[in-house]
Amino acid sequence: MFKKILVANRGEIAIRIIRACKEMNIQSVAVYSETDKDALHVKTADEAYCIGPAQASESYLHMENIISAALLSNADAIHPGYGFLSEQPKFVELCEAVNLTFIGPSSEAIRKMGEKAEARKTMKSAGVPTVPGTEGVIDELEEVRTIAEKIGYPVIAKASAGGGGKGMRKADNKESLEKAVRQAQNEAKSIFGDGGVYVEKFIEEPRHIEVQLLADRHGNVVHLGERDCSIQRRHQKLIEEAPSPALNLELREKMGEASIKAAKAVSYCGAGTVEFLLDKHNRFYFMEMNTRIQVEHPVTEMVTRVDIVKEQISVAAGEPLSFTQEEVILDGHSIECRINAEDPAKNFRPSPGEITEFAPPQGFGMRIETAVYKGYEITPFYDSMVAKLIVWGKTREEAISRMKRGLTDLKIGNIQTTIPLHLQILENSQFQTGAFDTSFMEHFLDHQGSSVKKEKTDNQGF
Amino acid sequence: MFKKILVANRGEIAIRIIRACKEMNIQSVAVYSETDKDALHVKTADEAYCIGPAQASESYLHMENIISAALLSNADAIHPGYGFLSEQPKFVELCEAVNLTFIGPSSEAIRKMGEKAEARKTMKSAGVPTVPGTEGVIDELEEVRTIAEKIGYPVIAKASAGGGGKGMRKADNKESLEKAVRQAQNEAKSIFGDGGVYVEKFIEEPRHIEVQLLADRHGNVVHLGERDCSIQRRHQKLIEEAPSPALNLELREKMGEASIKAAKAVSYCGAGTVEFLLDKHNRFYFMEMNTRIQVEHPVTEMVTRVDIVKEQISVAAGEPLSFTQEEVILDGHSIECRINAEDPAKNFRPSPGEITEFAPPQGFGMRIETAVYKGYEITPFYDSMVAKLIVWGKTREEAISRMKRGLTDLKIGNIQTTIPLHLQILENSQFQTGAFDTSFMEHFLDHQGSSVKKEKTDNQGF
Repeated sequence: MFKKILVANRGEIAIRIIRACKEMNIQSVAVYSETDKDALHVKTADEAYCIGPAQASESYLHMENIISAALLSNADAIHPGYGFLSEQPKFVELCEAVNLTFIGPSSEAIRKMGEKAEARKTMKSAGVPTVPGTEGVIDELEEVRTIAEKIGYPVIAKASAGGGGKGMRKADNKESLEKAVRQAQNEAKSIFGDGGVYVEKFIEEPRHIEVQLLADRHGNVVHLGERDCSIQRRHQKLIEEAPSPALNLELREKMGEASIKAAKAVSYCGAGTVEFLLDKHNRFYFMEMNTRIQVEHPVTEMVTRVDIVKEQISVAAGEPLSFTQEEVILDGHSIECRINAEDPAKNFRPSPGEITEFAPPQGFGMRIETAVYKGYEITPFYDSMVAKLIVWGKTREEAISRMKRGLTDLKIGNIQTTIPLHLQILENSQFQTGAFDTSFMEHFLDHQGSSVKKEKTDNQGF
Repeated sequence: MFKKILVANRGEIAIRIIRACKEMNIQSVAVYSETDKDALHVKTADEAYCIGPAQASESYLHMENIISAALLSNADAIHPGYGFLSEQPKFVELCEAVNLTFIGPSSEAIRKMGEKAEARKTMKSAGVPTVPGTEGVIDELEEVRTIAEKIGYPVIAKASAGGGGKGMRKADNKESLEKAVRQAQNEAKSIFGDGGVYVEKFIEEPRHIEVQLLADRHGNVVHLGERDCSIQRRHQKLIEEAPSPALNLELREKMGEASIKAAKAVSYCGAGTVEFLLDKHNRFYFMEMNTRIQVEHPVTEMVTRVDIVKEQISVAAGEPLSFTQEEVILDGHSIECRINAEDPAKNFRPSPGEITEFAPPQGFGMRIETAVYKGYEITPFYDSMVAKLIVWGKTREEAISRMKRGLTDLKIGNIQTTIPLHLQILENSQFQTGAFDTSFMEHFLDHQGSSVKKEKTDNQGF
């Protein structure tokens, strides 16, 4: 097992990983930007190194500085968390070059899944259902017209290098196809520096369902069931839950098997997530694979009681998975609310500032993952998530009532947060019945008649 | 279901119950003594009533004041928590007289189990194994001599009205028998106002194993497995765990069945615990039944995922239990450490004062039950427990490492607590192997060579 792990991240996920290290008797090393010198992950780790100024490109994304800190501290592995360097094949290769274990999949697996059109091809040949569309990146517009005609409108043009809903344009008919493709190409070029675009059928009223995987170096791949992440605003997940209210046992097994196929197709190792769109006829389509730990992994931990971060670490050290597929039991229901420092009444404007009060909710079935504390100053440099509140309940109904209690007990002063919004969503009857799709938030915000600027988005992102 | 519940308690258990009410959509009423006006249970409840001065006899034990608060607030039920009025048959009768539901068993069941010699008799005739000894309270010393001779020395004289290890004397041979009986009688008389004493065989090197029960008004009684509470000092439990490292499946089932027999013998309803002594030959003996929720109930909740307090409330409202015996699955391992405001280095002297810092541990498998907060003043009027730290792990080993992490992360300043003591116990190899009995703490404290005054106690209490 590793003796010392450097955690190349900040915030709640850095603390989550450091805690796992402590319980595994592994020393932990934090890295931090100058503005993060008082951050909780710095105080929680055994050692900490400053790696540069506040701008992520100069610190948390600065590969050489992070590698230097790892070498200086004599770490033998690096855990990248999510975001930042977690899906950068080049970083994995740099780690390998200096004999540091990257806690995650191979650079090749990351590369294959990172290029979206390529990933679609790989999945198709592995027998994983993909959305009907072009074979890969578009060459000839005429060819796209033929395919669009065949699969039927609406279709959507997507940036191959994209993510987070950027570089996507929908076409409702053949008249608007060319414009949609051109716009997607231009946006792709300007945002990702790569104008490659592919076109696929636009799935109407889909749910966002993702399957958690764990794989070791001995060929074992297991799935831990699914998460439903359909409650999202502009492709940003707000509420996640496990299991999905829309899945039955049969569909869960089918999606689980498809996910395992996807992982095996790229010789995957570590924790990963296969994201699918599920249409109203219970057909599911591969969307993408996230080759890292995800923000919402705790809901899976709550229903399976598998510590995903510890498994990540031990499989990276060459250990076999500590359990088999047959031992995975989904028990009860879990929900996560992402608490962001944003003002929902003012178009989700970021609300940085000092946290003058912080009281976490406690008790049976309650879990909070956060890096903030009373007196902590939220900086505008990084993302706005201040806490993840996660509950477990015997039933979905109990989980909802526990989450309401938790959101009410959680006090974060004196900044604006999404807590009131979450409470409103939990009271919504459509949410309560579980019959929703990725357009839920758009309708919800419209219906609320809040001051939120109406923003039409195609909730079918990466 | 109830509309409003008055919680006749204070501290962490009052908050535990109020949280359950919130999640069940039931209004909650707190009561408090004058000194508790800033207590967290007061702030957590929907309403709160002052019921008298600091002394418990004038407030938390003052039946009429509590009943008045219940009537004034239009509560339809009272939850007594543990301690205080939780095992007072007279209080149950008072509740019934004014049409308030007492969330607990009948006054008759409490009475039958509260009088220890009587309970022994009831258990014996119900076929529950009891420690060999006198039939009931002692009349003639000569008769005791004959019985002691028959069952063999050492024997122990115990106050029938007793509890908490008070009113107990051991006799190693016939010469010391009379003295032990007289001393026990005198102590029983002076402490409990009832000199009744019975004598039973002294079980050597026993473990304290207790079985959690839940029973409804429809004749269903289920057990939720056992807790091992052998780590105690002067009959005060320090660390509890579930399941017991000493039990196998067969023994668990036997003890579970015996406990169900015990409950059925008194037509039990609600949550209750049957405490046993387990000797080194795996023979177990009924010690007593606690007819209330217990401090250590969370460890059972963690391994069974049954919310015991919610079940208590719903069965009191006439609902059937929400699960069957077959549905009870023990998953993983849970440990609880009681964090007391005491100085272990100074003979566990209470350490009241203001809490100048409070940081609870967080994360997967971590749970804390507490009523303290930064700025809270611990008063000398009530018991010294400031928090219960509870962890869950896949294995006992993982639970121990998670508890170490939790105890390290938990910051309670600026008072002395038992946190360092717990950390030392967790490092002890005998504790780690699980091969200990109720004398563990005595040896542990001796061996530590700490400044703790050596106190020989008969770790075989109530």
